[in-house]
Amino acid sequence: MNGDDLLRETTAYLHTQIPLTRAMGVEVASYDGSELVLTAPLALNHNHLGTAFGGSLNAVATLAGYVLLWLELRDRSAHIVIRESRIQFHRPVKSALRAVCRAPEGTTLDHFRASFERKGKARLELHVEIFAEEELAVAFDGTFVALR
Amino acid sequence: MNGDDLLRETTAYLHTQIPLTRAMGVEVASYDGSELVLTAPLALNHNHLGTAFGGSLNAVATLAGYVLLWLELRDRSAHIVIRESRIQFHRPVKSALRAVCRAPEGTTLDHFRASFERKGKARLELHVEIFAEEELAVAFDGTFVALR
Repeated sequence: MNGDDLLRETTAYLHTQIPLTRAMGVEVASYDGSELVLTAPLALNHNHLGTAFGGSLNAVATLAGYVLLWLELRDRSAHIVIRESRIQFHRPVKSALRAVCRAPEGTTLDHFRASFERKGKARLELHVEIFAEEELAVAFDGTFVALR
Repeated sequence: MNGDDLLRETTAYLHTQIPLTRAMGVEVASYDGSELVLTAPLALNHNHLGTAFGGSLNAVATLAGYVLLWLELRDRSAHIVIRESRIQFHRPVKSALRAVCRAPEGTTLDHFRASFERKGKARLELHVEIFAEEELAVAFDGTFVALR
């Protein structure tokens, strides 16, 4: 599968498995092996003030973490769950939602994969950022666990 | 307006103002002045494992906080926003989502209202719990701000 096919297939998987992602219009926009980008239109995700709803911002950040781990583990039989998260809303998002999750530096992902293969369980902290007009709007930190 | 009308009107307000709440099937189920309950069906909010999606759980918890403040301020011109939140997922939710937000104890809400009226701005911490088969499944803490 080439890169674009993988992104389309992953978007379709999300829409089938997690119906809210279809209602939100979530798309896996890009992944270059180090940075994953998820998008969703404002029209489906605004709040009573016309800016992005906090629940939608949290959901796209959470999904960015899931998708990064799915793509990195390349094992859909892995059950990826979220254990806890913290989110800070620095400024309102007034255009399309765009969540960026960077793959952890160095050997962190190698250790995560090795731990998952050896013990059938592994834990990873992921940081996701959402920008509004080039400025940081939302900072999200989540603890994800992969289980066989 | 009687209590049931207020709950129906608030649900309709959510569905109109925040379109995702309609896609999630969110309903304001009850509020007795001390405990607010929001519900959403699992069928619209499940994840790839058939349990409640973390993004949906976060969204209903966030909405429970918003709705409690709307009902307590009785002032829809107040702009209620969320500044930050923390959430812990203790166990999977395998049935309808049911978020419970208790109004703060003692004079906390009086201080919040007084501060909002005097300064046009007030901040409040709210705790929301989601139960699964009588056991605590999700614990959420959010910092909400009301602005004129």
